[in-house]
Amino acid sequence: MTLADRWLLPEGVDEALPEQAAKIEHLRRTLLNLHESWGYHLVIPPLLEYLDSLLTGAGSDLEIETFKVIDQLSGRLLGIRADFTSQVARIDAHCLKDDGVQRLSYCGSVLRTMPAGLDGTRSPIQLGAEVYGHGGVESDIEVLSLMLQTLSVAGLSNLVLDLGHVDVVNGVLAACDLSADQESKLIELYKTKDLPELDRYVDGLDVSSVKKQWLVGLPRLCGGKEVLGLAANLFGDVSESINSAIVLLKQLSDSISERFPTVGLHFDLSDLVSYSYHTGVVFAAYVPGHGNAIARGGRYNNIGQVFGRSRPATGFSTDVKALVALTNVVVNRPKTVLSPVCSNDKLWKKVNALRTEGYRVVEVLDDFYSGDADFKLDFVDEAWQLMPVQN
Amino acid sequence: MTLADRWLLPEGVDEALPEQAAKIEHLRRTLLNLHESWGYHLVIPPLLEYLDSLLTGAGSDLEIETFKVIDQLSGRLLGIRADFTSQVARIDAHCLKDDGVQRLSYCGSVLRTMPAGLDGTRSPIQLGAEVYGHGGVESDIEVLSLMLQTLSVAGLSNLVLDLGHVDVVNGVLAACDLSADQESKLIELYKTKDLPELDRYVDGLDVSSVKKQWLVGLPRLCGGKEVLGLAANLFGDVSESINSAIVLLKQLSDSISERFPTVGLHFDLSDLVSYSYHTGVVFAAYVPGHGNAIARGGRYNNIGQVFGRSRPATGFSTDVKALVALTNVVVNRPKTVLSPVCSNDKLWKKVNALRTEGYRVVEVLDDFYSGDADFKLDFVDEAWQLMPVQN
Repeated sequence: MTLADRWLLPEGVDEALPEQAAKIEHLRRTLLNLHESWGYHLVIPPLLEYLDSLLTGAGSDLEIETFKVIDQLSGRLLGIRADFTSQVARIDAHCLKDDGVQRLSYCGSVLRTMPAGLDGTRSPIQLGAEVYGHGGVESDIEVLSLMLQTLSVAGLSNLVLDLGHVDVVNGVLAACDLSADQESKLIELYKTKDLPELDRYVDGLDVSSVKKQWLVGLPRLCGGKEVLGLAANLFGDVSESINSAIVLLKQLSDSISERFPTVGLHFDLSDLVSYSYHTGVVFAAYVPGHGNAIARGGRYNNIGQVFGRSRPATGFSTDVKALVALTNVVVNRPKTVLSPVCSNDKLWKKVNALRTEGYRVVEVLDDFYSGDADFKLDFVDEAWQLMPVQN
Repeated sequence: MTLADRWLLPEGVDEALPEQAAKIEHLRRTLLNLHESWGYHLVIPPLLEYLDSLLTGAGSDLEIETFKVIDQLSGRLLGIRADFTSQVARIDAHCLKDDGVQRLSYCGSVLRTMPAGLDGTRSPIQLGAEVYGHGGVESDIEVLSLMLQTLSVAGLSNLVLDLGHVDVVNGVLAACDLSADQESKLIELYKTKDLPELDRYVDGLDVSSVKKQWLVGLPRLCGGKEVLGLAANLFGDVSESINSAIVLLKQLSDSISERFPTVGLHFDLSDLVSYSYHTGVVFAAYVPGHGNAIARGGRYNNIGQVFGRSRPATGFSTDVKALVALTNVVVNRPKTVLSPVCSNDKLWKKVNALRTEGYRVVEVLDDFYSGDADFKLDFVDEAWQLMPVQN
């Protein structure tokens, strides 16, 4: 390994030097304070767990993303978390016995085997919030509002919100009586949005022409609020679950439009980018000029079932590092005071008093300090005094 | 895997529920602010790096403690950090080209394959600070002072500081002209402090009686400040490096006694518990009733050499979770306000104004809230108003 190699970081792994680290820390605190002001309690799940705990409930999507190690103590497989959701579900199910609504937030590093997200990162600092114990649209509205407020407080504007609902795709596929292979093929085509290929494939299926209309119409249901009306017309007779999903998306989007009038709304009823643990509304926020979502979330009822307590749940997450990269976080630095090395008690006490008052006091070693400073401590009139420094 | 299994966490791995998490977050912020007020800049190294980067320079001690995974992108071995020091050394050597003194701090999770420390943890939240670019006793005094101030601000009192210097053991062994096997055996005996066995072993060595006195006298040099005088007498003629080490320990302990008169000082000149990357003074802080150190550190010059820049360095680290477990961190919670779900714009604006003012405002879902509250929002006289709640 050469010197140059030792400096390199693995692809998708980065570090924050002082200027950027100060911004990340500042934004982290600001956003956790925001979540607290909304009634969300911070939890700190472990970075590593038994792999079964991490993956059970969250679905197999996460399996390929999760780094695995062998526990030398138990011989069992451990996973480094790639996502917080199943950990928070375990905490709600097992540790917090409260039957009422539980609002939890978190912020910490996750690791992924493959690059993902806005900046192709494998080591985001994930920040998110979840509501457990409430299944109505009100908690979806709350979580979505908190996500938009989080992005707004972070400094993002011109947001576009993408909304979908897993019951629409699921309801249409269920109503068409397809084989598992056929469903898989359709889901793949919906994901890639290869419409010409989809049309050819559906044309060859042995289903009624009405059903063919549903199947080819679904991925074309994307756009503004008018999509909900079109969907209601197209799927009016298909199933109750699709109707409920459309009604919920209408309530949700009306509420968000009122609360966040500047946020653009976009619907995509065949959206399937989310994790397979989602059971209801799914959403993602985008900023102009970036193809990947800056935050995403949705409803995932019953994820805690495998941990012994099945509860409705809805939540979102974002990446603090990606937010810092996209916004202009301003950190107010304390005034810097240069002091000689504290070789006597009087100076030592003065320096620490200044630090407590909010100054940054640097003891200058070897009479050399390369940064900017606002004051220096000089011994004048029998006392240590702050004297302005001309930079 | 049964339900009960899924709730279990691996040995030495824990999570923080809301009450404890709030304390950890509060202490984390308080201590990082303290470090900033001393002129230390936060850096955020990655959780995972090429194994060679993590282990080179830090020595092989860390190899057994480091979880390893294979990078699917490069096929190379990656390590999850078990310690920050070599990462910060890489940042100083490669990223920060400043030739002056560099003060860096950090706080984040590390993972270890084996339990260690005060509470047998494998997932501490390590917080620490390092000074690069200064080799004199002044930076040792500064880092040691910051360590003690960190512990004091965290709420610990009755601290005992253990001090040693690697040049004492190294100097004595070098002066005795022993074989590598003999040195290894002696180091093992110094580590286990098996004095009777040590005496027997030294008695059988083919060295002069003066050297035998050095070898058996060394591990008995532990206690208060008088130890330094005894060591000067015993090793006065052995080597310049031992003399310098004793002088440095004297300067350091005099300074610390003056700055922190309530901290107990203890010397152990055969102490070898630290990592092998240490090259000068080594120290550890203890609290009564606990056998393991709550913080430790020392000088480790030239650790950056393998990254292309050899600089003197000294630093310390502690574990925020262990600090919270040992102290009584008081978190000031904001006043809690209960609000109906914000179904109109007036209430939504009022709720967010209160949040900005520092209240925690919870929208009550399903008319049920199980926590304590200070106020509720009622619509009185055509306006939403805060009304006190009797708990």
